[in-house]
Amino acid sequence: MKAAAFGESNYPRNMWWVAALSSEVTEGALVSRQVVGRSVVLRRTSTGEVAALEDRCPHRGAPLSLGDVIDDNISCRYHGLQFAPDGRCVHVPTQDHVPARSEVRAYPVREIGPLVWIWTGDPDRADEHAPPEFDWAGNADWLHVSGAMPLQANYMSLKENVLDLTHFGFVHANTFRIRGWVKPPDVSVIDDVVRFEVTYDNVPLPHIDATMSGLGRRRVSSTTWGRSLSPAIHEAGMDARLVEPAPDERTDYHFRILHITTPASPRMTNYWWFVGTDYGHDIDGVHDWLRASITDGFIEDKVVLEAIQAAADADPEYARGPEVSVTADRAGLHARRQLQRLLDREHGPDEPVVASDIGSASTNEERKA
Amino acid sequence: MKAAAFGESNYPRNMWWVAALSSEVTEGALVSRQVVGRSVVLRRTSTGEVAALEDRCPHRGAPLSLGDVIDDNISCRYHGLQFAPDGRCVHVPTQDHVPARSEVRAYPVREIGPLVWIWTGDPDRADEHAPPEFDWAGNADWLHVSGAMPLQANYMSLKENVLDLTHFGFVHANTFRIRGWVKPPDVSVIDDVVRFEVTYDNVPLPHIDATMSGLGRRRVSSTTWGRSLSPAIHEAGMDARLVEPAPDERTDYHFRILHITTPASPRMTNYWWFVGTDYGHDIDGVHDWLRASITDGFIEDKVVLEAIQAAADADPEYARGPEVSVTADRAGLHARRQLQRLLDREHGPDEPVVASDIGSASTNEERKA
Amino acid sequence: MKAAAFGESNYPRNMWWVAALSSEVTEGALVSRQVVGRSVVLRRTSTGEVAALEDRCPHRGAPLSLGDVIDDNISCRYHGLQFAPDGRCVHVPTQDHVPARSEVRAYPVREIGPLVWIWTGDPDRADEHAPPEFDWAGNADWLHVSGAMPLQANYMSLKENVLDLTHFGFVHANTFRIRGWVKPPDVSVIDDVVRFEVTYDNVPLPHIDATMSGLGRRRVSSTTWGRSLSPAIHEAGMDARLVEPAPDERTDYHFRILHITTPASPRMTNYWWFVGTDYGHDIDGVHDWLRASITDGFIEDKVVLEAIQAAADADPEYARGPEVSVTADRAGLHARRQLQRLLDREHGPDEPVVASDIGSASTNEERKA
Repeated sequence: MKAAAFGESNYPRNMWWVAALSSEVTEGALVSRQVVGRSVVLRRTSTGEVAALEDRCPHRGAPLSLGDVIDDNISCRYHGLQFAPDGRCVHVPTQDHVPARSEVRAYPVREIGPLVWIWTGDPDRADEHAPPEFDWAGNADWLHVSGAMPLQANYMSLKENVLDLTHFGFVHANTFRIRGWVKPPDVSVIDDVVRFEVTYDNVPLPHIDATMSGLGRRRVSSTTWGRSLSPAIHEAGMDARLVEPAPDERTDYHFRILHITTPASPRMTNYWWFVGTDYGHDIDGVHDWLRASITDGFIEDKVVLEAIQAAADADPEYARGPEVSVTADRAGLHARRQLQRLLDREHGPDEPVVASDIGSASTNEERKA
Repeated sequence: MKAAAFGESNYPRNMWWVAALSSEVTEGALVSRQVVGRSVVLRRTSTGEVAALEDRCPHRGAPLSLGDVIDDNISCRYHGLQFAPDGRCVHVPTQDHVPARSEVRAYPVREIGPLVWIWTGDPDRADEHAPPEFDWAGNADWLHVSGAMPLQANYMSLKENVLDLTHFGFVHANTFRIRGWVKPPDVSVIDDVVRFEVTYDNVPLPHIDATMSGLGRRRVSSTTWGRSLSPAIHEAGMDARLVEPAPDERTDYHFRILHITTPASPRMTNYWWFVGTDYGHDIDGVHDWLRASITDGFIEDKVVLEAIQAAADADPEYARGPEVSVTADRAGLHARRQLQRLLDREHGPDEPVVASDIGSASTNEERKA
Repeated sequence: MKAAAFGESNYPRNMWWVAALSSEVTEGALVSRQVVGRSVVLRRTSTGEVAALEDRCPHRGAPLSLGDVIDDNISCRYHGLQFAPDGRCVHVPTQDHVPARSEVRAYPVREIGPLVWIWTGDPDRADEHAPPEFDWAGNADWLHVSGAMPLQANYMSLKENVLDLTHFGFVHANTFRIRGWVKPPDVSVIDDVVRFEVTYDNVPLPHIDATMSGLGRRRVSSTTWGRSLSPAIHEAGMDARLVEPAPDERTDYHFRILHITTPASPRMTNYWWFVGTDYGHDIDGVHDWLRASITDGFIEDKVVLEAIQAAADADPEYARGPEVSVTADRAGLHARRQLQRLLDREHGPDEPVVASDIGSASTNEERKA
């Protein structure tokens, strides 16, 4: 939260970002998306693979996503030039040959489980990295639900939101009905991953889990944790164990969620969430109910984050105002540093992008740590 | 009119501005408002007083007006930090102590009669000034009606509008039905107050007063006057005396109005009006009728003033175009000078803010005065 | 296409532009319009002539188009100043004399056939030029239909669109149902006029003409041509001759269309079309049907052109992206050069406005020519 987060580009390019949920890219459809400032058209080709091209015809600039698919090529809506999945122009209806330099940029793509990842940075470096994988996300024994919620705010505001769950009792008091989460968690940073964890002994199951597990408000020992794996993705979970199980009763329940944050622009974020649980399969209509329950809560975050962004955009003094940090911000502040390290690596240490504010904000936090 | 009025900040800070009508600030409610470029949250505390804080949590920037009131403190919607009416942070849910420098700015407030005044300038100088008072506005024997009409235009355009009532016959021909007001008034400037006055002998009562007084279009000697007390507020009135009263018939009727103009930004104005009359109490439904009648007319001003602002915003040449003044503009031109003096005092004479155009515009007017 | 077309002013002033269709300017009405960046108010005076004034009162800046017509003068809505058709201020209600320099700018106007032309450049040079005339447009034996379609895109994008009809099979496949127009036309440039022409022998009549002529899909030899007479206007036509007429059967059918492109601003275009045919009079409801049919098709162009503009406006890299030209672009590229010559004449050759991109784009095209 500071100038950089409010209006400037604060996203590294040389990393994998999510371009779409797999379920969004169906064969024959052309999906237009802003990904870290690039216009991209995604589609599933006849081989079942996802291809990503720059969404701009090099002829007269029409978005390719307005076009049609013909013979596994995208046919531009305007003059019918055709582009193969690899970006080559393969047909110009008005002449026999294809002009030089008429290819569009094709972006490396990886589809892993429910996510389609894209690389918009230096193409030669894509293979140096790999997107993360999540066993539970592809585990057919688990229940899965997902949602997309475009956010008119910088993506880091959502990152920091999910790194500090003490907001639940205030933002989500009437939806998730969790009020007591005010204990600052343990925070660790290993390599570039920021992790927090907090355990509550002998507390009632949260509302959603109480309903889905059929256990009602029975008491559990509950460990809530999250880890920001990169600016692109955050994995979180709750591991609950019944405090007083009946004989032979199942004791352990697991909830997982991915928070996927791909900047469209400095002020607009493609935000998706993807949930998995190892319970609840037998509840009638559970998918719809869970999707609606989570959406109700996340809209509350959206309202707050967009209000902050809008106020800062409308008034530079608001954006530049003081920022006081508390102990519960430790994980979020580490995520800012994680981001800064990535930006420094990309731009060189002499060109800091969001560094200045982090030092001062963390002073406050460090003092308490 | 001119660059400053169209797009730049042309409002002094070291003066009292109206933040709200008293009736808008009810206990328990949090009223968010832009006041001379500041985001302010207003509320009525348990003691009945109005408190005004900066509408921005110093923790992560959420507008405090999204929050709740708990124990006479504002509780931030995002992480539950609590702020007392004086701006001190008194509670952080996740820790025992309150961080240093976590207070929000509290603005001096004065509630006088129907108006809540705020001081956003140098706090040490608030007591050097006092907001104006209006006996009639608090006189329970008078009939009172008010309205709020946000205006997408610089506040000075409304100031100049009410300082020259010769626009009535053109803007309000079909609502107020006053067509003959084309006589330029007498204008005087005493200290910083610009005053105009014009008397029409033996004219029919204007439509609204004819209806409310029950006199119909009987003829009166009518004095219409206005005084710009500061950039914040303009008081106007009509004093009418029956030309041929019946024996023992009441002869004098008084209409008063406040035009309250608080800039939200250079292009947006919080505009309120507050009317009082010493007649009309016995008319059925008079409050609603009078409110609707005045609103109908003032919407006509809004249309014209917003059209001027929009045209100027869309086209710099339009904004920079010539401005010809006539005799009827004298009061308005004095108000520009009054404003310029205030801005000079605040910024120093070496930093004129809207001066340049006033000299040339007034040349034309002075020549005729 | 390219920076200049996307966001900068790329319209010459010293030429005739269309301000309105004649049918839009009816007596008593005040028509407000943005014409090459100027706010203009058009009206038909009591003599039947069209007058065009700057749409801005020199007194306090109100748009004159908000006013009324009184005694063949425009009366300003705000304070009733009156302006004659030649722009002179002739009445100030509040005083006996009219201030100096209170005239508004009057623009030269020519009404020819269905079009009202305006000159916003150097007034002394208006008579050096003359707007084009079109016999068929005023020929009462022809059927005429017109439409207005404001376009949120630079006007040159529409110019280039109608100079390359090979887009019909892709943009209009489902409306005009013409799919085979992929033959690049012959292109010629004579003086400043860019002309293209292409003939298809023994093809079925296009859908619209098939219906209107009552000939169905009978086969014709069809010559389709267009000529960009200036940045303001493009005339196009189709001349069709029946391949196997019956004895004494009519053999020749003519379709004409004007594409009229007046920039309101660099990103907004007043676009009108005006059609004439020498057949179809006897079809019931033909005017409405033809207007609707053409509108359906042109909305498809609007969608594509506005998508290109929006993408370029949202992303400077999109706007600056590569542009590859093909043989079919020859006429459009010549039109860019035609425009550049006009801009050079106006600004001097040392101040090129859109030149840089034309050379490189045309290299590709020249190579094939």
